[in-house]
Amino acid sequence: MRQSLQPSRDPADYAFVHRLRTRFAETDAMGIVHHAAYLPYLEEARVEYLRSIGHPYDVVRSGGVDVAVLEVALRYRKPLHFDDQVDVSLVVGAVTRTTFQIAYLLSVGGEARATAVTVHGCVDATGRPTRLPAWVGEELR
Amino acid sequence: MRQSLQPSRDPADYAFVHRLRTRFAETDAMGIVHHAAYLPYLEEARVEYLRSIGHPYDVVRSGGVDVAVLEVALRYRKPLHFDDQVDVSLVVGAVTRTTFQIAYLLSVGGEARATAVTVHGCVDATGRPTRLPAWVGEELR
Amino acid sequence: MRQSLQPSRDPADYAFVHRLRTRFAETDAMGIVHHAAYLPYLEEARVEYLRSIGHPYDVVRSGGVDVAVLEVALRYRKPLHFDDQVDVSLVVGAVTRTTFQIAYLLSVGGEARATAVTVHGCVDATGRPTRLPAWVGEELR
Amino acid sequence: MRQSLQPSRDPADYAFVHRLRTRFAETDAMGIVHHAAYLPYLEEARVEYLRSIGHPYDVVRSGGVDVAVLEVALRYRKPLHFDDQVDVSLVVGAVTRTTFQIAYLLSVGGEARATAVTVHGCVDATGRPTRLPAWVGEELR
Repeated sequence: MRQSLQPSRDPADYAFVHRLRTRFAETDAMGIVHHAAYLPYLEEARVEYLRSIGHPYDVVRSGGVDVAVLEVALRYRKPLHFDDQVDVSLVVGAVTRTTFQIAYLLSVGGEARATAVTVHGCVDATGRPTRLPAWVGEELR
Repeated sequence: MRQSLQPSRDPADYAFVHRLRTRFAETDAMGIVHHAAYLPYLEEARVEYLRSIGHPYDVVRSGGVDVAVLEVALRYRKPLHFDDQVDVSLVVGAVTRTTFQIAYLLSVGGEARATAVTVHGCVDATGRPTRLPAWVGEELR
Repeated sequence: MRQSLQPSRDPADYAFVHRLRTRFAETDAMGIVHHAAYLPYLEEARVEYLRSIGHPYDVVRSGGVDVAVLEVALRYRKPLHFDDQVDVSLVVGAVTRTTFQIAYLLSVGGEARATAVTVHGCVDATGRPTRLPAWVGEELR
Repeated sequence: MRQSLQPSRDPADYAFVHRLRTRFAETDAMGIVHHAAYLPYLEEARVEYLRSIGHPYDVVRSGGVDVAVLEVALRYRKPLHFDDQVDVSLVVGAVTRTTFQIAYLLSVGGEARATAVTVHGCVDATGRPTRLPAWVGEELR
């Protein structure tokens, strides 16, 4: 795996935070949020982060560049429950010419529930890997 | 609503049946399969039905025609649980020049669990409604 | 089907509105939001509505009553796309001793995208149908 | 992260394989299977593996033990598309008194599409971590 970031459990170590609320549809028969539901949470936070730095993802995509997910790694520390308000904190790191990584902390009321890392690369309209757009290097590095 | 079919609870009234197994990820905190998970079950059965009559959905799509869902209606009679083997029976009806409907019965071990109707229309690559391909009228009517 | 409400396309006919943003994970290969993703939208709006009238769903559930979905019906009028801000309007109707219905309008920037009806009944901890709690009759009727 | 397995890209290195077909509902607007959909694929394969060794997951769960997911790591090598038949190969490793790991290879027609590792621990009915049942040590080690 390429992932090299070590996500901290201290919210102060993150550059951006997005709050969301878990849905009942995302729970499972164990009475907790199913582990697969966390990936859309990370994605939603990425989308809001890109918007916050002036690069809404639909504009990025209409420019012919898709941001592909190359790797994900999650560590589930304590469960999330229905109706929890989750703070998804994130910070970008490990930017290279073709990839970048994001570290995440999911917390509820300041208590860490999960940490994660995603590794991304850009692909063109045909799905072929391509260099990161200039703004990625400038804004995210 | 355009839906006019009355789905029967007798499997003998259906033209095709597809068996699938519910996933743990599809359950919710009530301990049963979440009601939203049924729509992909209907879709999976439609895809297998199209394959069975010689019109695999990816071939249909590569021909420039998408089969859009215009309406859905579901009646949940008894819950589905994790690991249930569900027989999704279906039959096409109410074919017009631009739309067709499908009635469904979801049963486990012969016991009705849910019934449903979907209404479909074809759209071209730009998303605009278009006449049904000839085979739909021929095969499905 | 028991559903009897006719959902209006005029937002003024609804009692409550909840805004949400579509997720990329909810899109499909047709480039639009997948039709199954609408059901969690309706559910999220119901949860926020119950909170707004002082009956948070987790409190309702901890009281030993679950609100089951008996029927759903959706009509897809125009597609939703990634990152759309969707106003989910709802109004309760057709309250009986054991069931109630909710009509929904999903709109983006005032334009109707979908309408829906859900039919609900209460079940106790063992999953058996039970009379609606008194507050349902009082608050929702 | 506790994950220590290095998933091989050679199907011969795996103990069990489960074939599934991707659903249209699992695709996204990039035209490929969304990265979050892979986690239910891994879960479905785990469930079939447990069944194959005589420990169906619903029987395990009714015995008061839930198998929690502590960590997941996925590497997406080539995309999956709608209607692909995916072979999910798996092998258990790194069994301790309280945790075990599973390595996965997802392939289509023999071509590797993704590799993954999940780390699991058992919890009792109250969600507290508990020692692995004896059969886990015996069967999986």
